[in-house]
Amino acid sequence: MGKEFVKDITAMDVDFAQWYTDVVTKADLIDYSSVRGSMIIRPYGYALWENIKNELDSRIKETGHENVYMPLFIPESLLQKEKDHIEGFAPEVAWVTHGGEEELAERWCVRPTSEVLFCEHYKNIIHSYRDLPKLYNQWANVVRWEKTTRPFLRTLEFLWQEGHTCHATDEEAHEETVRMLDVYADVCENVLAIPVVKGQKTDKEKFAGAKYTYTIESLMHDGKALQSGTSHHLGDGFAKAFGIQFTDKDGALQHVQQTSWGFTTRIIGAMIMVHGDDRGLVIPPKAAPTQVMIVPIAQHKEGVLDYAYELKKTLARVARVDIDGSDKKPGWKFNEYEMKGVPLRLEVGPKDIENNQVVLVRRDTGEKTIVLTDHLEEKITEILKDIQRHLFEKAKALREEKTYMAQNFSELKEIFAEKTGFVKAMWCGDRSCEDQIKEETGATSRCMPFNQEAISTECVCCGKAAKKQVYWAKAY
Amino acid sequence: MGKEFVKDITAMDVDFAQWYTDVVTKADLIDYSSVRGSMIIRPYGYALWENIKNELDSRIKETGHENVYMPLFIPESLLQKEKDHIEGFAPEVAWVTHGGEEELAERWCVRPTSEVLFCEHYKNIIHSYRDLPKLYNQWANVVRWEKTTRPFLRTLEFLWQEGHTCHATDEEAHEETVRMLDVYADVCENVLAIPVVKGQKTDKEKFAGAKYTYTIESLMHDGKALQSGTSHHLGDGFAKAFGIQFTDKDGALQHVQQTSWGFTTRIIGAMIMVHGDDRGLVIPPKAAPTQVMIVPIAQHKEGVLDYAYELKKTLARVARVDIDGSDKKPGWKFNEYEMKGVPLRLEVGPKDIENNQVVLVRRDTGEKTIVLTDHLEEKITEILKDIQRHLFEKAKALREEKTYMAQNFSELKEIFAEKTGFVKAMWCGDRSCEDQIKEETGATSRCMPFNQEAISTECVCCGKAAKKQVYWAKAY
Repeated sequence: MGKEFVKDITAMDVDFAQWYTDVVTKADLIDYSSVRGSMIIRPYGYALWENIKNELDSRIKETGHENVYMPLFIPESLLQKEKDHIEGFAPEVAWVTHGGEEELAERWCVRPTSEVLFCEHYKNIIHSYRDLPKLYNQWANVVRWEKTTRPFLRTLEFLWQEGHTCHATDEEAHEETVRMLDVYADVCENVLAIPVVKGQKTDKEKFAGAKYTYTIESLMHDGKALQSGTSHHLGDGFAKAFGIQFTDKDGALQHVQQTSWGFTTRIIGAMIMVHGDDRGLVIPPKAAPTQVMIVPIAQHKEGVLDYAYELKKTLARVARVDIDGSDKKPGWKFNEYEMKGVPLRLEVGPKDIENNQVVLVRRDTGEKTIVLTDHLEEKITEILKDIQRHLFEKAKALREEKTYMAQNFSELKEIFAEKTGFVKAMWCGDRSCEDQIKEETGATSRCMPFNQEAISTECVCCGKAAKKQVYWAKAY
Repeated sequence: MGKEFVKDITAMDVDFAQWYTDVVTKADLIDYSSVRGSMIIRPYGYALWENIKNELDSRIKETGHENVYMPLFIPESLLQKEKDHIEGFAPEVAWVTHGGEEELAERWCVRPTSEVLFCEHYKNIIHSYRDLPKLYNQWANVVRWEKTTRPFLRTLEFLWQEGHTCHATDEEAHEETVRMLDVYADVCENVLAIPVVKGQKTDKEKFAGAKYTYTIESLMHDGKALQSGTSHHLGDGFAKAFGIQFTDKDGALQHVQQTSWGFTTRIIGAMIMVHGDDRGLVIPPKAAPTQVMIVPIAQHKEGVLDYAYELKKTLARVARVDIDGSDKKPGWKFNEYEMKGVPLRLEVGPKDIENNQVVLVRRDTGEKTIVLTDHLEEKITEILKDIQRHLFEKAKALREEKTYMAQNFSELKEIFAEKTGFVKAMWCGDRSCEDQIKEETGATSRCMPFNQEAISTECVCCGKAAKKQVYWAKAY
């Protein structure tokens, strides 16, 4: 489209952070309020979250999990029961000290995550191996008292689901941890068209209280990484702290093995930064609140609007279709729905009606096709599928382009001095090397990928024998 | 069923409050935790809430509303902007005073309701008559610092939806207030089979900050009333306090007219107390997580379990079906799913398979029918429909039975001394009479029904000229 229609958003290359802020506000995803660090999720942003939520919720249910709801508050003494956990979360919780006029005897925090609440409940309801596994999930809001915040990426309050499960054996808990990471990867790749690297977090980066943490990591357009979902094997640490025991088949008393896993509104930030461009949002069809936006041309002419509304009704059978029948100019509308990342625009005017055709314009490629209305439903289904495929391929290609390899420390530093992206390099396993890399390059270990490549035999930092290949990156 | 299978729950007539507590815990709807006044909503309870939520959410969307999400916290200064509102809510909010280690400059409350957050946002986004109406809804948790709590009925934290809308005229806001009350009544009567009385709250009982409040009131099995949903016309009080103005078609600046309306997890308490009996829960089919529970008989015999699982697959086309294939005795299962209020039990054993039949047992009437499997799908659809209808009729008959009429104060006192239920009586409109009635009978004004009956010309309390007919009752 002509530049004259383009809303004033900063170009990505000029200032990526400002581009992001422009997009989330001007595409009507969020608004700010007087509540520092929190965001208002507006109808378009919330409809997007509802789609993601529905896709994930159905997968969580298909894998045998049940939804529950736990209290918002956690008494301080309960939070303190698991030592690593309280250490990790205490600095970033909000404390309630008064109820009405009365000061509380014990202060309560607003849940930053709900492990301890689930544990207290599990102790009540688990007694025998017959009670296992327990596969619970919760959709909720949580609060972490962040100093610096950005819409979706890091907010004081965010929405998420948190799964919490109990198993009879370490092996079963391990399988669950993998299974749910796979579910997250499936939603990222097949709904949001975001390619991910699956791997394990280092001990430094793992969840407070976990035995180990699995993660999916994605790469944004600016070459920074974003942790997109985590799945934790909690071992029996919480079970021992809370006394969650069961009688096994042989009559022996054992502690359960637990997992937890979470996926948040943050993923919307990832989607924006993976697919967006200088004209605004680009939403993959499977997540898009509106997949096809009908824009009537010369709508004041007799029959055009009626025809367009009829078309909407017909197409609603195969896609989420909307129509803008307002009296704004077509050019304004084109720009607005490009800004909002609607995958496909359908233009229809008097000449199209006469010729029994419509014009389809793809948001991802800008490609324009004239399609006969006889085959419209099939054609639209086909194009939406192709957009979904194309966005994934494009994101994958960009990730490959921005993925580097370093054999030694000078190479690693050179790459991070000049570029941003994933750097694959070997690691000896020592925390000190991890710290030094962070200090000298600003990059953190994103994960030890499941798919290990033997890049060299030496740690990229200290030169000692390497234990693991790691993806390093600057991250959100 | 034989008494030997019945779990130990208190009979309704012995102690209704204890019966209620027994049912919510033994039917696995909730569990308690160390968080005073809050509840854990267990899988069965949450699945019930999800069904209610889905039914209501689709109606909210069909009437043109959009879902959004507002922050959990409200800074004290923002809450204070509307005077009546803060007076109503300040005594019952939870205050956050610390974030991490740091003490806040201004304390934040945990939202008890979100009018002020919506108002702040509306001021940002509404400028012209073209921006109206704004029809927003939010699904969220809210907190009210209650001293005495009971699962579902009154909890420190509860789940709800809250609608918040802006309109150009008083008349449009009025229509919206009525429309959403009708939506609530529809969900109550046609999903939950709870008959309701629609009416207006007196000024004493209206929402803090509203011009007027409409309500639906239902009657529990013990004759106490329960407010089941409210819809408020807020007038322009909030709009003036927050400066929400728009330019009308003639170019004049006007304040918007607003509404808000809410429906909560409380309704689950109503459903329990309207339909439940001494054997436990009775859930209307449209709300039931499981509508048909298959209990295999002599399931150790070859082919029985396979047959039952096949049946489950077939019936899933017409109903939410589950199966209990565990090695517990059929009698235990019968009792368990009666306790849980599953509308229909399907028994199938070797003899039934031989005869190409199954046994259906209704939870509401206990009626047993032998049905040929050829017609099973139609038959089940038909019976579920009949259960839904029957529960509503039964509840309505009970309400009629417990609805009385009083002409004067001695009659009113006599009724409330001997009975519990709705009492229809006339009122002069004075707060002092309302207060006196409460003091001397324990009953409050539930509503001034839309459907006014002229019972007499005099106020039931003071004898002065009557203005309105009121439903009075002791209430939850």
